[in-house]
Amino acid sequence: MSGELKNRLDFIMEIDRMKGIMRKSKIFHCDRKENGAEHGWHVSIAALLLAEYANEKVDMLRVLKMLLVHNLDKILASDKILYRKTQEDLETERTAAKQVFGQLPAPQNQEYYDLWVEFKDKITPEAKFAGAVDGFLPLMQNTIRDGQEWRAYQITYDEVMERNRKIAEGSRVLWKHIKEEINIADGYDFSEDMNITE
Amino acid sequence: MSGELKNRLDFIMEIDRMKGIMRKSKIFHCDRKENGAEHGWHVSIAALLLAEYANEKVDMLRVLKMLLVHNLDKILASDKILYRKTQEDLETERTAAKQVFGQLPAPQNQEYYDLWVEFKDKITPEAKFAGAVDGFLPLMQNTIRDGQEWRAYQITYDEVMERNRKIAEGSRVLWKHIKEEINIADGYDFSEDMNITE
Repeated sequence: MSGELKNRLDFIMEIDRMKGIMRKSKIFHCDRKENGAEHGWHVSIAALLLAEYANEKVDMLRVLKMLLVHNLDKILASDKILYRKTQEDLETERTAAKQVFGQLPAPQNQEYYDLWVEFKDKITPEAKFAGAVDGFLPLMQNTIRDGQEWRAYQITYDEVMERNRKIAEGSRVLWKHIKEEINIADGYDFSEDMNITE
Repeated sequence: MSGELKNRLDFIMEIDRMKGIMRKSKIFHCDRKENGAEHGWHVSIAALLLAEYANEKVDMLRVLKMLLVHNLDKILASDKILYRKTQEDLETERTAAKQVFGQLPAPQNQEYYDLWVEFKDKITPEAKFAGAVDGFLPLMQNTIRDGQEWRAYQITYDEVMERNRKIAEGSRVLWKHIKEEINIADGYDFSEDMNITE
């Protein structure tokens, strides 16, 4: 077996750990949290099915590559809730991503790290659309539960709106839809049980 | 919200059930079975990383589309172990796939059903390579456990070799590698505890 094949297979076994890394959001069909691998699959299919709602024409292969690997830094960096991320957390993620993708042979190590950075930076049409779908799906997961998770983590309506409005940069259609759903969830007042200490 | 957007979002929520549909193989990093969503993510990344070992040049976007949806029939048809599938099981799967993808608006309903059929038929270079990676990953999962699952389901060495040799049609490199791993696992004699009743 070539060294490159071995490196790739080791990497494939290593990232299996995403199946044990739990996210904050719950899955749709039953009451348990989602793991990183499940999310990676779901958000990739969602991007395929919702492609026509992208604001700009996008290269779907690049979108899928980004979405399949966008969370791999979590193997080394813990998953902080989006609404509470600090600049230091972002730097920790970047260092982790460099280390994780560094296990791949060249030029794949650089290609996937660059895709990971592109996704985070949200400048290209592909990153904007991938980011929009990645933001949209947890909002769906939360709005069908009337904002249960936001309540659990003491996130306010204004924080949800502020943090997610950049979905519109990737897809105005998706943002328009989910904004209405957030407003309906807010009708149930997802901040009602909060005890804000900050 | 347009009817088409609603149909797509309903479909995205419906296929969430893949996260509760358990496969026969266990994940790499701990001792539990894998669900369909986790497998869909893992096999898609594996295809990206192992693309250079495809026998023929392939359109990776088509490969990824196939791999992301190749198991969606399982929402309606139960997952029989590969080695024990009958012609009737294959027809049940096809009917299930038609029904599942039929929930999408046109032309996506036809596009994804056609991709599902293409994957099953293993005629195009994309389907052969996608099938090779889809076959390769469970073999890795089983060989690192010395054929534990084959033993559990009373699958013989000859059955494993016979059923999987078509991996070579998609990737001779991957087949060569995994054949050696199967031989090593057979050294531990994964048929030893069998009590074959057929």
